Amino acid sequence: MRVFFDPESIAVVGASRKPGKPGHVIVKNLLEGRRSGLLKAEIYPVNPKAEEILGLRCYPSLLDVEGDVELAVFAIPAEAIPSAMEDAAEKGVKGAIIISGGFSEMGRSDLEERVVEIASKAGMRIVGPNCMGIYDPYTGLDTMFIPVSREIRGRSMQVLPRPGRGYIAFVSQSGAFGGAALDYLAGKGLGISKFVNLGNRCDVDEADLLEYFLEDPNTLVVSLYVEGFKDGRKFMKAASEFSLRKPIVAFKAGRTEAGARAALSHTGSLAGSDRVYSAAFKQCGVVRAYGMKELFNMAKALLMQPPARGPNVAILTDGGGAGVMAADECEARGLNVAELSEGTLRRFEEMRRKGRIPAFAPYRNPVDLTGSVTDEMLTECLEVLLEDEVVDGVVAIPLHAPPALTDRFVDGIAEVSHRFDKPVVVCDIGEGEMATYVRGRFDELGVPAYETPEEAVASLWALYAYGRFLKSRGVFDEYLEEFLSRRRRLFGEA
Amino acid sequence: MRVFFDPESIAVVGASRKPGKPGHVIVKNLLEGRRSGLLKAEIYPVNPKAEEILGLRCYPSLLDVEGDVELAVFAIPAEAIPSAMEDAAEKGVKGAIIISGGFSEMGRSDLEERVVEIASKAGMRIVGPNCMGIYDPYTGLDTMFIPVSREIRGRSMQVLPRPGRGYIAFVSQSGAFGGAALDYLAGKGLGISKFVNLGNRCDVDEADLLEYFLEDPNTLVVSLYVEGFKDGRKFMKAASEFSLRKPIVAFKAGRTEAGARAALSHTGSLAGSDRVYSAAFKQCGVVRAYGMKELFNMAKALLMQPPARGPNVAILTDGGGAGVMAADECEARGLNVAELSEGTLRRFEEMRRKGRIPAFAPYRNPVDLTGSVTDEMLTECLEVLLEDEVVDGVVAIPLHAPPALTDRFVDGIAEVSHRFDKPVVVCDIGEGEMATYVRGRFDELGVPAYETPEEAVASLWALYAYGRFLKSRGVFDEYLEEFLSRRRRLFGEA
Repeated sequence: MRVFFDPESIAVVGASRKPGKPGHVIVKNLLEGRRSGLLKAEIYPVNPKAEEILGLRCYPSLLDVEGDVELAVFAIPAEAIPSAMEDAAEKGVKGAIIISGGFSEMGRSDLEERVVEIASKAGMRIVGPNCMGIYDPYTGLDTMFIPVSREIRGRSMQVLPRPGRGYIAFVSQSGAFGGAALDYLAGKGLGISKFVNLGNRCDVDEADLLEYFLEDPNTLVVSLYVEGFKDGRKFMKAASEFSLRKPIVAFKAGRTEAGARAALSHTGSLAGSDRVYSAAFKQCGVVRAYGMKELFNMAKALLMQPPARGPNVAILTDGGGAGVMAADECEARGLNVAELSEGTLRRFEEMRRKGRIPAFAPYRNPVDLTGSVTDEMLTECLEVLLEDEVVDGVVAIPLHAPPALTDRFVDGIAEVSHRFDKPVVVCDIGEGEMATYVRGRFDELGVPAYETPEEAVASLWALYAYGRFLKSRGVFDEYLEEFLSRRRRLFGEA
Repeated sequence: MRVFFDPESIAVVGASRKPGKPGHVIVKNLLEGRRSGLLKAEIYPVNPKAEEILGLRCYPSLLDVEGDVELAVFAIPAEAIPSAMEDAAEKGVKGAIIISGGFSEMGRSDLEERVVEIASKAGMRIVGPNCMGIYDPYTGLDTMFIPVSREIRGRSMQVLPRPGRGYIAFVSQSGAFGGAALDYLAGKGLGISKFVNLGNRCDVDEADLLEYFLEDPNTLVVSLYVEGFKDGRKFMKAASEFSLRKPIVAFKAGRTEAGARAALSHTGSLAGSDRVYSAAFKQCGVVRAYGMKELFNMAKALLMQPPARGPNVAILTDGGGAGVMAADECEARGLNVAELSEGTLRRFEEMRRKGRIPAFAPYRNPVDLTGSVTDEMLTECLEVLLEDEVVDGVVAIPLHAPPALTDRFVDGIAEVSHRFDKPVVVCDIGEGEMATYVRGRFDELGVPAYETPEEAVASLWALYAYGRFLKSRGVFDEYLEEFLSRRRRLFGEA
């Protein structure tokens, strides 16, 4: 599988001189990777009708390339693929990414079967066909045939910005959705470790990728978009094993009858009973998301925060309404707005008396510091809540507007949260300068920040769901220890 | 009620020279309104300890002001309010906005009762106490005591940007949430007609505002954040009448037991049974939203698009996965992914044959034009779908990345949709340049654009729910006619 992400040499079969053509965009992307210093692989354009493409010598066929070819990317009509794959087999190519459509999705399962046969005889693996392929921000590999920017009516427009480096792998069955989701991730500043669009999945599937990602140091969480599995048992086996060490979040579409019908005509996926999926996901530790934003919101939480030992949540805010929303979402998700321990209530009572929190601040969870909040109150109260044995995790919603707040509460909350092994997620509402600063800075510090109280609670729920799985498998403490040492590495010491 | 939004003169009781103090920020906001040319009102700072505030002459008491005072904004300690209100009554003030807290929310219902008594004797209306007051981007009135920008550690930061002019009134029971939501709206570029934070609602409540907004030409939709009503019957009566002519969307928090407990300690609202609320809302035509983003997403749809005559939806996309998501959400919301009429299917079949849509494009709803989509295909297919009698509304999800798309599809889709009296909502996914351009341009053209398929479908559902209400009251056609003529005015001729 390594050759799909970090090959020593890449041939682009169907390389093109014509801007906009997939075979042109791919060569251009790869050259961009070389230029940035990331991509180490040799690049060999293959096209019998060209001498040179984008300054690179072009070869009539794979067999004419002098050096070894580890990875071949195919962007030629489906009918021409089998013969080109024969060449690849002969050349000793180890991995094939077949971009081209025109296979089983268009009723040509026969073509797909032939291609699989050729590859399996030669010990070659295939990603695709009918896919966007792979984008790896660590190795500079990018086989997506949609360019970052494109000229539209005389103006260069960013059509598919690529996200930067991060620790979340993203695997999408759908190409268009996968690309759109990358565009979203790039804009939100959430990095990825790898993107794979599997397309028809004639060979490499989610299970194969999980196996590979388990040992990939850059992949700490896997996010999946899937409409159905070809081999459910294989996926479950791989996911069960994977989830013991790294979390998986899956957004499974086609969950209703109408959606399932649409999925059938889209990827030919038999969506199957949704309850069966839910049960299977739960059994193998896969956290289920119900939408794109939720998928990545949860992945971010699982990347940055430890799993929760239980469902008891404390809510800390300076905006009562936001506290109500968070409480609603907790109950709706099966989390428990914790009854704080007597000791904690006494501590808050004392803080009130000493003027360390407002005299009129409700503190019986939600703890609402009101508009009289200060940076110190937030950090002190967070500490009190995290010290309460009853509390399994905290949703902090420090709306940034109150007059006495500076930006110090952000680093303060992060610092306190890093001293505990319980999850903390935060929310600030707004799209102005301060709100985006606050959320961005929290993310930088490893405290996942969300745009609404509901999204924050949903993400804390993911940490609870994953924690429950780890406990059921008896590996909670082991995971937690590894997580904490990783967090120190990624986000610094407390 | 007019004096609360467009007074001829405003006194700020408790005006302050000290930057950051509510009484300073409010005077500064009002001066800003004058400077921009919007606010016509005379401004009278009142403070016995100052001669001048921000260049304005300061008066020792309301009674010392020479001219008339229509609106008085109070930012002095609660204990001092009754006596200041006596002055206001004597002065003939017509409206009082009491910013100050320290009333019923802190156990001082006695103070609140006295204030109400003084006002009612004098025929004065009160907004508040314990509130942020009012922001009206048309008249330049702004009594919010949080400034747009504030210095934080030596750097000016935008802490509460105000949204621009639009047609959605926003009424929030919670001040902190109200402010945060304005920050969100400003960033999303969604304008408002008026913002009112009601606080303790000792006098003016949602029902009073509805009555006023019904005749306000700038208010075409009302969005509410509420934790509970003081007088449910009064609200229902006002809402039932209002909804016949203009839509209301309400985000009611405290819908679970945990949320209701939190609401009780926040605004003292008895949240009541959530089912009762749902039934009451439905009965008086109030569309219910379950979160901040949904509140404004739905308000935008109701502002820009006609109500739907029925639940039958057509989905048009170039990304199969997005089509599956939309279909899922339709079914989850009780909308019906329509079985297209025979005539429509024949038209699509013919378009396939003529190469006007891809030969392999699924068209049995969702219509998926795939990555081979062109601008023309999108507009032609939209027209075909809108012409189908079976179809009550369309969710169009033209993901922008496919190579043959320019930006023309945006104006094309808008142009087609304006020729029909059925609702069309759109989605493009991504946060890059093209995605944000596409959504922004759709919004400009009066076709509400959303960031995910689910949000688009939820917003179409709002149009269905409102349409159902209008039909049940026998005023659908009347509303539709008025809507269409308004749309021509706001978003131009088809």
